[in-house]
Amino acid sequence: MTDVPLTYEDAPAHAVRTAVALALAEDLTPLGDLTSALLDPTITAVAQIVARWPGRVAGTACATEAFAQVDESIEVSWAVRDGGAVEPGTRIGTVSGRLAPILTAERTALNFLGHLSGVATLTAAYVAAAATGGSAQVWDTRKTTPGLRALEKAAVRAGGGRNHRGNLSDWVLLKDNHIVGLGITEAVRRCHDRWPARTVHVECDRLDQMTEAITAGATAVLLDNMSTDEVTACVIEADRLAAGGRRCLLEVSGGVTLESIGAYSATGVDLISVGRLTDSAPILDIGLDIEPTS
Amino acid sequence: MTDVPLTYEDAPAHAVRTAVALALAEDLTPLGDLTSALLDPTITAVAQIVARWPGRVAGTACATEAFAQVDESIEVSWAVRDGGAVEPGTRIGTVSGRLAPILTAERTALNFLGHLSGVATLTAAYVAAAATGGSAQVWDTRKTTPGLRALEKAAVRAGGGRNHRGNLSDWVLLKDNHIVGLGITEAVRRCHDRWPARTVHVECDRLDQMTEAITAGATAVLLDNMSTDEVTACVIEADRLAAGGRRCLLEVSGGVTLESIGAYSATGVDLISVGRLTDSAPILDIGLDIEPTS
Amino acid sequence: MTDVPLTYEDAPAHAVRTAVALALAEDLTPLGDLTSALLDPTITAVAQIVARWPGRVAGTACATEAFAQVDESIEVSWAVRDGGAVEPGTRIGTVSGRLAPILTAERTALNFLGHLSGVATLTAAYVAAAATGGSAQVWDTRKTTPGLRALEKAAVRAGGGRNHRGNLSDWVLLKDNHIVGLGITEAVRRCHDRWPARTVHVECDRLDQMTEAITAGATAVLLDNMSTDEVTACVIEADRLAAGGRRCLLEVSGGVTLESIGAYSATGVDLISVGRLTDSAPILDIGLDIEPTS
Amino acid sequence: MTDVPLTYEDAPAHAVRTAVALALAEDLTPLGDLTSALLDPTITAVAQIVARWPGRVAGTACATEAFAQVDESIEVSWAVRDGGAVEPGTRIGTVSGRLAPILTAERTALNFLGHLSGVATLTAAYVAAAATGGSAQVWDTRKTTPGLRALEKAAVRAGGGRNHRGNLSDWVLLKDNHIVGLGITEAVRRCHDRWPARTVHVECDRLDQMTEAITAGATAVLLDNMSTDEVTACVIEADRLAAGGRRCLLEVSGGVTLESIGAYSATGVDLISVGRLTDSAPILDIGLDIEPTS
Amino acid sequence: MTDVPLTYEDAPAHAVRTAVALALAEDLTPLGDLTSALLDPTITAVAQIVARWPGRVAGTACATEAFAQVDESIEVSWAVRDGGAVEPGTRIGTVSGRLAPILTAERTALNFLGHLSGVATLTAAYVAAAATGGSAQVWDTRKTTPGLRALEKAAVRAGGGRNHRGNLSDWVLLKDNHIVGLGITEAVRRCHDRWPARTVHVECDRLDQMTEAITAGATAVLLDNMSTDEVTACVIEADRLAAGGRRCLLEVSGGVTLESIGAYSATGVDLISVGRLTDSAPILDIGLDIEPTS
Amino acid sequence: MTDVPLTYEDAPAHAVRTAVALALAEDLTPLGDLTSALLDPTITAVAQIVARWPGRVAGTACATEAFAQVDESIEVSWAVRDGGAVEPGTRIGTVSGRLAPILTAERTALNFLGHLSGVATLTAAYVAAAATGGSAQVWDTRKTTPGLRALEKAAVRAGGGRNHRGNLSDWVLLKDNHIVGLGITEAVRRCHDRWPARTVHVECDRLDQMTEAITAGATAVLLDNMSTDEVTACVIEADRLAAGGRRCLLEVSGGVTLESIGAYSATGVDLISVGRLTDSAPILDIGLDIEPTS
Repeated sequence: MTDVPLTYEDAPAHAVRTAVALALAEDLTPLGDLTSALLDPTITAVAQIVARWPGRVAGTACATEAFAQVDESIEVSWAVRDGGAVEPGTRIGTVSGRLAPILTAERTALNFLGHLSGVATLTAAYVAAAATGGSAQVWDTRKTTPGLRALEKAAVRAGGGRNHRGNLSDWVLLKDNHIVGLGITEAVRRCHDRWPARTVHVECDRLDQMTEAITAGATAVLLDNMSTDEVTACVIEADRLAAGGRRCLLEVSGGVTLESIGAYSATGVDLISVGRLTDSAPILDIGLDIEPTS
Repeated sequence: MTDVPLTYEDAPAHAVRTAVALALAEDLTPLGDLTSALLDPTITAVAQIVARWPGRVAGTACATEAFAQVDESIEVSWAVRDGGAVEPGTRIGTVSGRLAPILTAERTALNFLGHLSGVATLTAAYVAAAATGGSAQVWDTRKTTPGLRALEKAAVRAGGGRNHRGNLSDWVLLKDNHIVGLGITEAVRRCHDRWPARTVHVECDRLDQMTEAITAGATAVLLDNMSTDEVTACVIEADRLAAGGRRCLLEVSGGVTLESIGAYSATGVDLISVGRLTDSAPILDIGLDIEPTS
Repeated sequence: MTDVPLTYEDAPAHAVRTAVALALAEDLTPLGDLTSALLDPTITAVAQIVARWPGRVAGTACATEAFAQVDESIEVSWAVRDGGAVEPGTRIGTVSGRLAPILTAERTALNFLGHLSGVATLTAAYVAAAATGGSAQVWDTRKTTPGLRALEKAAVRAGGGRNHRGNLSDWVLLKDNHIVGLGITEAVRRCHDRWPARTVHVECDRLDQMTEAITAGATAVLLDNMSTDEVTACVIEADRLAAGGRRCLLEVSGGVTLESIGAYSATGVDLISVGRLTDSAPILDIGLDIEPTS
Repeated sequence: MTDVPLTYEDAPAHAVRTAVALALAEDLTPLGDLTSALLDPTITAVAQIVARWPGRVAGTACATEAFAQVDESIEVSWAVRDGGAVEPGTRIGTVSGRLAPILTAERTALNFLGHLSGVATLTAAYVAAAATGGSAQVWDTRKTTPGLRALEKAAVRAGGGRNHRGNLSDWVLLKDNHIVGLGITEAVRRCHDRWPARTVHVECDRLDQMTEAITAGATAVLLDNMSTDEVTACVIEADRLAAGGRRCLLEVSGGVTLESIGAYSATGVDLISVGRLTDSAPILDIGLDIEPTS
Repeated sequence: MTDVPLTYEDAPAHAVRTAVALALAEDLTPLGDLTSALLDPTITAVAQIVARWPGRVAGTACATEAFAQVDESIEVSWAVRDGGAVEPGTRIGTVSGRLAPILTAERTALNFLGHLSGVATLTAAYVAAAATGGSAQVWDTRKTTPGLRALEKAAVRAGGGRNHRGNLSDWVLLKDNHIVGLGITEAVRRCHDRWPARTVHVECDRLDQMTEAITAGATAVLLDNMSTDEVTACVIEADRLAAGGRRCLLEVSGGVTLESIGAYSATGVDLISVGRLTDSAPILDIGLDIEPTS
Repeated sequence: MTDVPLTYEDAPAHAVRTAVALALAEDLTPLGDLTSALLDPTITAVAQIVARWPGRVAGTACATEAFAQVDESIEVSWAVRDGGAVEPGTRIGTVSGRLAPILTAERTALNFLGHLSGVATLTAAYVAAAATGGSAQVWDTRKTTPGLRALEKAAVRAGGGRNHRGNLSDWVLLKDNHIVGLGITEAVRRCHDRWPARTVHVECDRLDQMTEAITAGATAVLLDNMSTDEVTACVIEADRLAAGGRRCLLEVSGGVTLESIGAYSATGVDLISVGRLTDSAPILDIGLDIEPTS
């Protein structure tokens, strides 16, 4: 069996272990797998993990972990790892061992693979659509499924996207409610003082807010719910303010779709963030084709 | 402030507490909310939880818990509870207390509300579509997001759907790999012996399998990936076998869409299960409109 | 060393891991094993796990796990696995490795083995007693020791018993307080609607309640605290209602003893549930005979 | 409603919280209480917790916690607290609140109450039997149910017994395998050096071992599996060695029954330890009598 | 009783809850507080939390939580909150309630207060010493006590320091081993591509490395183990490169002491990081003066 | 690679596993190690764990566990184990495997090693200083860092110290607040009754209290904050009371320093407890010298 190594961009090992343990507990409490218990425990099988739809794979480490936590003697090898592209019928991996525990772990393994590959696949679609217009990166957001932040953000990377801040503790993102009564300039100054060296990101609804944020020293500005024309005006102004130096990072956010992302990318912004990468991605259908071997 | 009680069909309290604790930890480790820390801690606010899109609400208990775990003095009341229908602009609930912790908990609360309301909304759409053809119930599956089984299954109920087995420990579902070498009749017999009184569900690809399963005493049969014509033939045969008594439950499963569910419902089956209710539901967009009060 | 494989009916692996981790933590917090720390750490030993009393074994996976969590280099093999019968002196298994960690894990391993084998042994006694009167199965209940549900229910299976519902989420069991104000017929109808395909079990104190429950479509009825004469009357009526078809499952419950179970079994009921299998089973005495080897 | 405070000898609060959370999770994963979900959620009830058998109560804090974790608005008050004696029919406590969550928590609350009161009741029986012969205290052992060490040891105290060491980290107990190659005298010396001020307990099979242990400075000796005559000889010798000073504590252990404990107590030993207090206590039957109030 | 509110810069609530639960479990497993169990449970007390040494307070939320987790009826109020300066004898807070649980929680509460106030106090000393030379901020590092990252970083803020990155997930810090084979320029470019908008920090041993890092677009450079003369040269060069614009942040790190920090601050760098703030801070001695009140 | 086994006095394995898992989670949530993700995942390395300062090592099991939890294929071997003395430059151990995960685990491993070796080193210094005056043992206290009780107490043993009680559940320590209203004699009597065989330790401020405690049968007395003259008077009186038998253990506690411990040791007491061993030990500086190998 061939095996393809996972690159180190995947989710951290502890996050994989914890998420899989929770998923198995919710699927097996209290009596375990009633149906597999009817099987002759000596039957073994080889099973192929196969893509049913085209897309990008993510979550292979979770699948490996799911089989291992049910029965550590099950062997899993991968022909495609996170980030790999698949077509319907592509063999992604192979599972071999006792049939009963393979069936017990099957759904948990596939739920991770399907969901995370769904995130990677939708990300790849946005990345491709953005590339038709320009060179803007595609970002995720904090609109992730509760409990799966680390895994979904890794799936976005597998799909060719980039990660916005990981959580509230990563960097500062000033929204309107944070600025009320302070003004952008004073708020940014406080950030630089309280959280030095850290990214200061400012949400802007209008060009004049962007100008103030950049002048105050923001690392990045989020252009919120603007039309491509408004964004273009912002890009021109930001280029002017950069005066040939490193331009403040410009993020477009708010309701960008697969249809509109190319046009936003063409404006020359650096980044476009898309909540639906993680909050609304349908699964990628991946199945397990099992052949009993004894 | 009015408040609407949650019915007792919601997810169990311990599942809500645990899921929220995990979600907050992943959003706040290690330093907490950098941005809210810049605020004057004495500022208070009243915030409205408002639907942006039409749909069905679910997850209100999670939202209440998210605010409480961040700051137990925040007050949350609900005008709409799980299962309630909303239109764009409908006020779902109200949050009041200190502004800083409200902002800290906001995304976590909305991630639960958005995701679970998305599940309820998609379920309601399938339920409505099924009703156009007949009286078949709409079921979920075990294709849930890892770690959120209890919450998503409650969201399906909020959307008017019904729950398939909760996990591998609930009841027996014999698939092809369980039956190999035994045959349906013997497999069902073993189930009745080993797991007495428990639902025995048999996956069938063909009418003759269904006949054998019903004759063997299955509680329900899953008609897998059949056309409406094939299903109709099964219904006729199952009616015949029932001979005026209680007919074995007939479930349709496999690739049923919003477009096709009405036709399947019209065949007279009892239940149609739909994996995408939980594995591919886009969020329902719900926002928090905040007004500082001091 | 010979080793006997565990059948797949044992408790799920995650339940074993979690229960053992808790048990070791309560025995070793905070300083670990003071006494074993006095030993020369290079001493090794071979220890026999030996039955002191006759009975049925259960909990071998827990014992393996206890030694492994203390020192993963300890080797454990089994001559008897869960469900096996033992006599005083029967060697159940062998443990070999460093003496100090063997002594540290000894009591935890034996506590699991003794308790769970006690459950299996008492179950086997009830099963044998029931068989003297008829073919009724022996069931457990939800009267399990808190935290050990999965393990005790597996021990009941090892003793030849069958599992009643695993928990409140498995199936519906209507007791008097659930029915008040609805009546049995309406309550059963609601169950079939809300929790389709799921077992609906109805607790009945009188024959007329049983008749109503069966007519309403209950999967099983629990004949609560009835005399054998009352039960016999119920069996006759249930047979009549079945009219040659599959009879509703009849469960006897309430105060059945080793002395009375044969008579209840002789009535022709399907199942007799016994709370004391799990709430009052004395341990099976199992010891560890240790011989230092270096 | 009257309420009786718990004395401070009960199990620590964190142990109660953790054990109850585990018990509820195993009873409610994944869907919660299917049956109570059928109830009208506005129905309230008052329920009496009533003894069915005579005995001693323990575990009231666990019962309070079980109701609170399911629904914090449920009120629980106690007429009898841990250590109190009850007769069949004695009202132990009262629960009031919404009916549905009361039914959901009922079995978990009763499982704790029944099991822990069973431990307290059996302890009280041994204490009473020991008192017929002399003044020896009754001790528990480390033969506790995995996961319930803290709660069962508190139940032993509620029954009038005393606690042997809580775990392997409390004090030193030298058994034959610890002493091999060192001899008692050297082993005790090492204990005093490595674990100063800490109880050093020595298991002895023969009088000469006891003499050596006492001379070496043991805090207590465990007279293992001796007849009452052998124990009497040990008592005489230990008195002689004490020479009017504080005698080394003498513990009798091994197979002591309700029938034999009086005779052992009459020998003049200080303590008799009984594994079955915690490993083989049948439950005390306690029930919940519920009256819907609306 | 007066009470002083905690500002929102403290550690997140979930981190406080979790750390306190662990600390209580390790202090109370398995039997609870043997000594307090001897007390009359009706005795109440008022206790003053008093500084024995001068310093800065931190950890008040942990102390509140420790008392609450042992007995939720204990009341705690604060005269000084995190960040407040105290002298020997300063009353920091007041605890009132039942004496037994106050004594049980005392050491846990004081361990948090003493340790975290120790961190805050040492930080304040470094901040004061740095201010004698210039305006450089004092930073912590990732050299924190395992398990207490969130709490210790909050204590640094309470002492007037600033937080370096919270963990490996916050921002990029390129050290020599990350750069080998890539060179600084290419490594920084990759960071900007893979982790856009995120702080890119480069460790430099020599001025030419700093120049390359700044030119490549680093957010900050860490001047590692340099003399003040070397640092001064770097500051001059960095000012030159800034050309009147925003200068790259300059961090001094490595072996800076209370004696040397003033001189480093005088060089004009922005920040000086000090591992010993969190890895070597002695406690601030804080005691509990208890007066029984009944 | 040579490897040196850990003696069995180290912290229990479950405590190591749990503490490391928490430490990695706080360092890697949510996105993992951003910087190491930039590396070519096929690069391997050999790294030496090297002492920078002289001292005593502790925490090697934690370091092994940290590397293993990040990547189980990393190999760690030890030239020096807990308790071993090191000089600047001493190689303590060797780590080999993939470079990226080695860098990810590096700081966590070193934080454990540095902190626990710091505790061991300070303990060894106190032990050496005490030995200059007499033969008194050096004890720790319950003033440990929250969450690290088991590990720090093991580090004290590695440094040649002895452990005071592990927690509140180990033995009884009567302080002034426990005795109020009872008097020492009655309080000790209650201890012997309620917690038989268990160490009873009495805190004494004056010689007459000590006399009463010893006469009452205390196992040990804590001479609190006394001068060496006062302690000497106590020793003389305790010798007199022992009358040639085993003297009650005498502990000196309160503000003992490296300068004063020799004089206290010279008084002839048995034990001197020092809170700062665990609450104020600076780290021992230990580094990782990494050489990429491919």
